[in-house]
Amino acid sequence: MSILVVGSVAFDDITSPSGSVKNILGGAATYFALAASYFTQVRVVAVVGDDFGPEQECVFHKHGIDTRGIERAKGKTFRWGGSYAGNLNEAKTDFTDLNVFQTFQPQIPKEYQDTEFLFLANIQPTLQANVRREMQGVSLTGCDTMNYWINRTPKELAETLKLVDVLLINDTEAKMLAGETNLPRAAHKVLAMGPQALVIKHGEYGATIFFRERAFGIGRHPFRAPALPLEEVKDPTGAGDSFAGGFMGYVASQKAVNREVLKRALFYGSVMGSFAVERFGTEGLQVLTRAEIDARFETFRELTHLE
Amino acid sequence: MSILVVGSVAFDDITSPSGSVKNILGGAATYFALAASYFTQVRVVAVVGDDFGPEQECVFHKHGIDTRGIERAKGKTFRWGGSYAGNLNEAKTDFTDLNVFQTFQPQIPKEYQDTEFLFLANIQPTLQANVRREMQGVSLTGCDTMNYWINRTPKELAETLKLVDVLLINDTEAKMLAGETNLPRAAHKVLAMGPQALVIKHGEYGATIFFRERAFGIGRHPFRAPALPLEEVKDPTGAGDSFAGGFMGYVASQKAVNREVLKRALFYGSVMGSFAVERFGTEGLQVLTRAEIDARFETFRELTHLE
Repeated sequence: MSILVVGSVAFDDITSPSGSVKNILGGAATYFALAASYFTQVRVVAVVGDDFGPEQECVFHKHGIDTRGIERAKGKTFRWGGSYAGNLNEAKTDFTDLNVFQTFQPQIPKEYQDTEFLFLANIQPTLQANVRREMQGVSLTGCDTMNYWINRTPKELAETLKLVDVLLINDTEAKMLAGETNLPRAAHKVLAMGPQALVIKHGEYGATIFFRERAFGIGRHPFRAPALPLEEVKDPTGAGDSFAGGFMGYVASQKAVNREVLKRALFYGSVMGSFAVERFGTEGLQVLTRAEIDARFETFRELTHLE
Repeated sequence: MSILVVGSVAFDDITSPSGSVKNILGGAATYFALAASYFTQVRVVAVVGDDFGPEQECVFHKHGIDTRGIERAKGKTFRWGGSYAGNLNEAKTDFTDLNVFQTFQPQIPKEYQDTEFLFLANIQPTLQANVRREMQGVSLTGCDTMNYWINRTPKELAETLKLVDVLLINDTEAKMLAGETNLPRAAHKVLAMGPQALVIKHGEYGATIFFRERAFGIGRHPFRAPALPLEEVKDPTGAGDSFAGGFMGYVASQKAVNREVLKRALFYGSVMGSFAVERFGTEGLQVLTRAEIDARFETFRELTHLE
């Protein structure tokens, strides 16, 4: 099955205690696409500028990612600079130059209309909703958002949430969206806004999936996947998008979507997030094999499984 | 098998978003003893004042806890007041009246000398070391400590750590003790200080156990137990001590101590912590049956186990 991701492609400058890099390929759609490419056929809708050349395109093509939906606009590609100190849990944004991303209007190529799965990376909620409405044939839609949209465009976001099946956000975003400090209570409030399932990412502590009653079958919930305690975290940038890529990519690779598939997907999300943070930028996602991914999946399973 | 806990018995005033209580039975040794009592025979060494009467003693006796080691001193019992707001993750201490606890010198009754397991709750490290040296016959010693001793008495604490088998502390304490912000690296530094195993508690995200190489058998490590996402957290006081009671109590109930037992113990620790926080004070630990505990153990297992 194929999956379409709509979101940002960017150039990043990143500084962490492990070093510093400049002008490396980044953006939510990039991390997502690379992570998902190990599981399924990936298509991308994004916008880039004149500075996006064959070198960058090659990163996508090496992983069989369809880039026909990446629009070339006049000007520069979206650029972001961020720094991490100490515990690496939070990025300090050094600069954000939206450039061609500022006026991004997602255009879905005709050849993409038959895509079965859709992931709306973190962009303005109305753009997300428009894409979802255009892609009537998708069987499952995943979605990300952030504090900025939760605070600034709550009405637009509420409309988008009615159109998505799985929302993937972090603890802070879930609590803010629900106006509730208790996590499971926040989860139930968010589910009441529309999604059938809600994945809450806990950073170094893993992620939890909550389900609406009877959504994707019957079963106890929630379900939690751990994160691997990693000795070396070089660069947390893109961890959440890589998580989403592993999660959605695995789901898209399965014949049916049920709770057991979504639970395994949660583990694959954690796995891809762990590979992403071990190197700078997308480097950790570029050099993998499916065998390495499955070996780490087993490590994650052993991390919490009793005999 | 029997287990001896040495630590505080106290009266607490607690305020949380769910309400307020005064003069309720508390203290690390109390939470530990109640939690462990569902698994094994528990003995307590502590000090109380004139205000500790039959009503309080009865709470211990109802759970078959041996209180011959609770010394009666002239004066008042240790009193603590704390408040929780918002996300309940941190207590604001309103007052601490050490009272008779200020000059606590643990006295081990002769009848306790044959105890097989020992837990040194959070008290001054030299007192912990003295107890450990006196109890030469124990087969396994667990230990807790806190930021106060890590900062104020690092040398004394270092001596104590050489004498214990399992240290149970939280993320912040582990990082502070190791002088290291990365959790697994911090864990390895702490293990090099003496313990064979280190349990790091993550609050609402569960706990991780790290092992010294070849300690308690061979196997991959670390291992992680989740915490149950609870809709109702009334009072987080004593969660860590209840965790320790479930963990050590389960270990003491088993024929041998190996990695599989310690992994299951980590789950039982999380289980007892979850019961503790659902009601005020020790109330959540007083009304349980072993069947309820095992049912929640299965819920925890299902929370992370793939089919």
